[in-house]
Amino acid sequence: MNKITLLMHCKDQSGIIAAVSNFIAELGGNIVYIDQHVDREQNIFFMRLESEFDNDILDLEHLKDTFKNGLVKQFVMKWRIYTSEVQPKMALFVSKYDHCLYDILGRYKSGELNVEIPFILSNHLDLKPIADSFDIPFYHVPVTKDTKPEAEAKQLELLKKHKINFIVLARYMQIISPKLINEYPNKIINIHHSFLPAFVGAKPYHSAYKRGVKIIGATSHYVTEDLDAGPIIEQDVTRVTHNHAIEDLIAKGRDLEKIVLATAIKHHINRKVMVYNNKTLIFY
Amino acid sequence: MNKITLLMHCKDQSGIIAAVSNFIAELGGNIVYIDQHVDREQNIFFMRLESEFDNDILDLEHLKDTFKNGLVKQFVMKWRIYTSEVQPKMALFVSKYDHCLYDILGRYKSGELNVEIPFILSNHLDLKPIADSFDIPFYHVPVTKDTKPEAEAKQLELLKKHKINFIVLARYMQIISPKLINEYPNKIINIHHSFLPAFVGAKPYHSAYKRGVKIIGATSHYVTEDLDAGPIIEQDVTRVTHNHAIEDLIAKGRDLEKIVLATAIKHHINRKVMVYNNKTLIFY
Amino acid sequence: MNKITLLMHCKDQSGIIAAVSNFIAELGGNIVYIDQHVDREQNIFFMRLESEFDNDILDLEHLKDTFKNGLVKQFVMKWRIYTSEVQPKMALFVSKYDHCLYDILGRYKSGELNVEIPFILSNHLDLKPIADSFDIPFYHVPVTKDTKPEAEAKQLELLKKHKINFIVLARYMQIISPKLINEYPNKIINIHHSFLPAFVGAKPYHSAYKRGVKIIGATSHYVTEDLDAGPIIEQDVTRVTHNHAIEDLIAKGRDLEKIVLATAIKHHINRKVMVYNNKTLIFY
Amino acid sequence: MNKITLLMHCKDQSGIIAAVSNFIAELGGNIVYIDQHVDREQNIFFMRLESEFDNDILDLEHLKDTFKNGLVKQFVMKWRIYTSEVQPKMALFVSKYDHCLYDILGRYKSGELNVEIPFILSNHLDLKPIADSFDIPFYHVPVTKDTKPEAEAKQLELLKKHKINFIVLARYMQIISPKLINEYPNKIINIHHSFLPAFVGAKPYHSAYKRGVKIIGATSHYVTEDLDAGPIIEQDVTRVTHNHAIEDLIAKGRDLEKIVLATAIKHHINRKVMVYNNKTLIFY
Repeated sequence: MNKITLLMHCKDQSGIIAAVSNFIAELGGNIVYIDQHVDREQNIFFMRLESEFDNDILDLEHLKDTFKNGLVKQFVMKWRIYTSEVQPKMALFVSKYDHCLYDILGRYKSGELNVEIPFILSNHLDLKPIADSFDIPFYHVPVTKDTKPEAEAKQLELLKKHKINFIVLARYMQIISPKLINEYPNKIINIHHSFLPAFVGAKPYHSAYKRGVKIIGATSHYVTEDLDAGPIIEQDVTRVTHNHAIEDLIAKGRDLEKIVLATAIKHHINRKVMVYNNKTLIFY
Repeated sequence: MNKITLLMHCKDQSGIIAAVSNFIAELGGNIVYIDQHVDREQNIFFMRLESEFDNDILDLEHLKDTFKNGLVKQFVMKWRIYTSEVQPKMALFVSKYDHCLYDILGRYKSGELNVEIPFILSNHLDLKPIADSFDIPFYHVPVTKDTKPEAEAKQLELLKKHKINFIVLARYMQIISPKLINEYPNKIINIHHSFLPAFVGAKPYHSAYKRGVKIIGATSHYVTEDLDAGPIIEQDVTRVTHNHAIEDLIAKGRDLEKIVLATAIKHHINRKVMVYNNKTLIFY
Repeated sequence: MNKITLLMHCKDQSGIIAAVSNFIAELGGNIVYIDQHVDREQNIFFMRLESEFDNDILDLEHLKDTFKNGLVKQFVMKWRIYTSEVQPKMALFVSKYDHCLYDILGRYKSGELNVEIPFILSNHLDLKPIADSFDIPFYHVPVTKDTKPEAEAKQLELLKKHKINFIVLARYMQIISPKLINEYPNKIINIHHSFLPAFVGAKPYHSAYKRGVKIIGATSHYVTEDLDAGPIIEQDVTRVTHNHAIEDLIAKGRDLEKIVLATAIKHHINRKVMVYNNKTLIFY
Repeated sequence: MNKITLLMHCKDQSGIIAAVSNFIAELGGNIVYIDQHVDREQNIFFMRLESEFDNDILDLEHLKDTFKNGLVKQFVMKWRIYTSEVQPKMALFVSKYDHCLYDILGRYKSGELNVEIPFILSNHLDLKPIADSFDIPFYHVPVTKDTKPEAEAKQLELLKKHKINFIVLARYMQIISPKLINEYPNKIINIHHSFLPAFVGAKPYHSAYKRGVKIIGATSHYVTEDLDAGPIIEQDVTRVTHNHAIEDLIAKGRDLEKIVLATAIKHHINRKVMVYNNKTLIFY
């Protein structure tokens, strides 16, 4: 069996679901997931659909062509179609913190993530032994104020060479340049260690401690040019009390960061995310 | 605008979504919600769909007839269609605990529940003043071992007379007879003060205390003849510690019971629940 | 049995716990709760202690005098002692939203809150019927830009006349003047419908919707002159998805607001809160 | 600085806190944590206390002797005193599932767990490469019905040889014999993949799926001779819907198991757990 995933949006109109359902049925597919959403304010219709085909029936290029020349034109759709046969390639950018890296690599080795990891990249050498112990290539690309352009050129070269589809910043701690962001729009996943939009920027646990919040959080989002302001993919929180010092918040936060980032990565890999108007739609 | 809600299930087959979508489109409806689920073990297809129609277009009886004679036969469906114009009628059965009653009546008066409450019934007089203060008729139907059959006859008479659609046991504390259950299959909503299936039966907070659990819960379910074993609609939990005595568990549990029961009632009122194989599907 | 609650803080020093424990033991008390906290940054020691005394043993005034002239001087303490015999008096300020009011009054009538409610005050008449149905005096004190000083004078007069100990703003929707805040420092409890410090000010659900957060929250805090920036007493959150429109966030938020405000009120009534440096310590 | 942790319980009596506080103060210690609990049903007083001493002041053996001959006799206490200088030794027992193992080893390498791990033991060879990649000795001790006594003898020999203080069953999947349990009372930590006491025994995710629960859980407990009935240390839960097949429950459960087991291990390592009457007291 082969499974395709369709993500689409267009102006809200009558008859879209019927038309797409008919299209799939006529090609011999069986819809196994369909979910749609209408943004009433913007009057936009969104749909995610999964369909199974017998292997000998599915001609993916023909399906895409027919779809593009037919319904896409009729309804003026934005669309993407993925097939389960192609595994995306993910690059991991890290710095010195190891907890998210251990968590992702453990999941990867367990077979939990349907992805390839061609390489891990860091501006420091500290985590190289972890990459080595998991048998994943490690590139050390130091970044200083002076060498930033060269470092980015090196990063882009590696990303292209390895045909990377998306990047995960697993506590990378460096600002990503607009050039790299534009090459990977809504394809760079960051983990921020606060419940955004509270505590944007550096040292959010210190800010949370100072404000005396009773709950701390972590947020995974796509990177945009505005710092910590990109589309939110996943958030989670945990309770704290006055007994928790800043180092306790940091320790409790590590578990949040791991779970939230892993969840966001899985949503992305499983094509469950659509981005619109700087927000995400997550089709569970 | 008029909105209809269709709930249906049948053997899983290709083309159902396309067929139903076409059916709605041809009658001039605009699908505003569609969600489906396939139970792979049982090979059953479930769907919930909401469609809006202009008031002057919708002929509900014609729609139902056409659907029944066409797609229902073709796919051998079990189905129900509701219209937003009809408000369900809910009876409240209570005993001596007042927290769920206050919560439901507060929500009702606030306009949060799209329902009518023709009456409150109790085997005790304690909560009559609350019914009075909210201007809702109160019937006192005492239940003793000897008078149980008469009490049930009286209950059924009241339910019929007021054309009640479903019953909420807001901590009613009495076993419901098979006769009443059979008259209202999957239409009697109970709140049980534990995280089922843990701590079935009486005094669950005492059992939870004795076992030393770190989390307590509440469960709302449809009443079946097996005690506390009917289809679960909603559950929620809260943390406890060794510092919580039994009376603290009871106090913390009250908030859980209120929220869980209210959520289950809202799911039921909004036609979001399908029951199959003693389990619920909740279409959010 | 009579129970006293001691809340105290002072510069961290050796021997405080031993000294206070001895003091209580010598007067014949049995300590049933003791918890302490040291703020390492500020070098401050905080303690909350509950002790039971036989009724014929306890002479509260003598105990307070001895404490004040002995340990308070020795350790340079800030301190308060409460007795379980005195029930605090709480005023409720409301506007047009009724959900928090229904929730608090239901709990009050159920005996869940160890408090007196001498009156409810509002700038509108909408909720008067609720006050009436719960048999609680209702004062209508309209507030316009021009009449604000008079309205506040009227409020203060009522608060004094009824010997109010603390005020709960149950969605009061009006800015409280510095004068009133200074009369009731850390004694005015507000509920803000966001996860502070995110979304300060008006229309937080609209802001949360716009930002596309995956979790919304509510925060109860003491009112200070800085808007929504006072010491946080309690927070809670709930998950939302792209399917939730603004009105859904508002509806989901109502349950959060009710639970969070009620929890904060109970902490305050049960003398579990200490305020220091614009943060709270909650001794569970 | 040296820190000692005292855990004690005895019949509830007046003056215990004062006496112990004085004892610590006289020896020059500064109490940095004190928490107590009274079980009113059993009339037992429990206390956990941490105290800091200057290194040149603390004579641990003298302190223990003085305590034992003085207050322990006076109040008839059960007691333990730990010093922060001694790091406990933990053995990991695993089978074929790797997620808990990866999680624990990642935390261990990050410095999150103040513990030594002298070895990993398994009845299968599958996870040996993980032990190797983390540079931890791995013992393969196969268990069959016939070889069970020999296997246990081998296990005990390894535990003694390495002076193991406590054992973690990180999804070990084998019943532990009474002999081993008696050698390590309340020192064998298991993770069970359900919200106990619901779904005791094998295949709890299958049972949860069949019952149609809306929330699944994981429970870490000390192993006793009654299967899955030992004192609960930690539990956590996560929401599921009808969309989750059994394999989805298993996948979601993995994250729960990891977090719950790691939390229980940390409580144990940090001497925060007391066991009484088949329940735990966790002093946060």
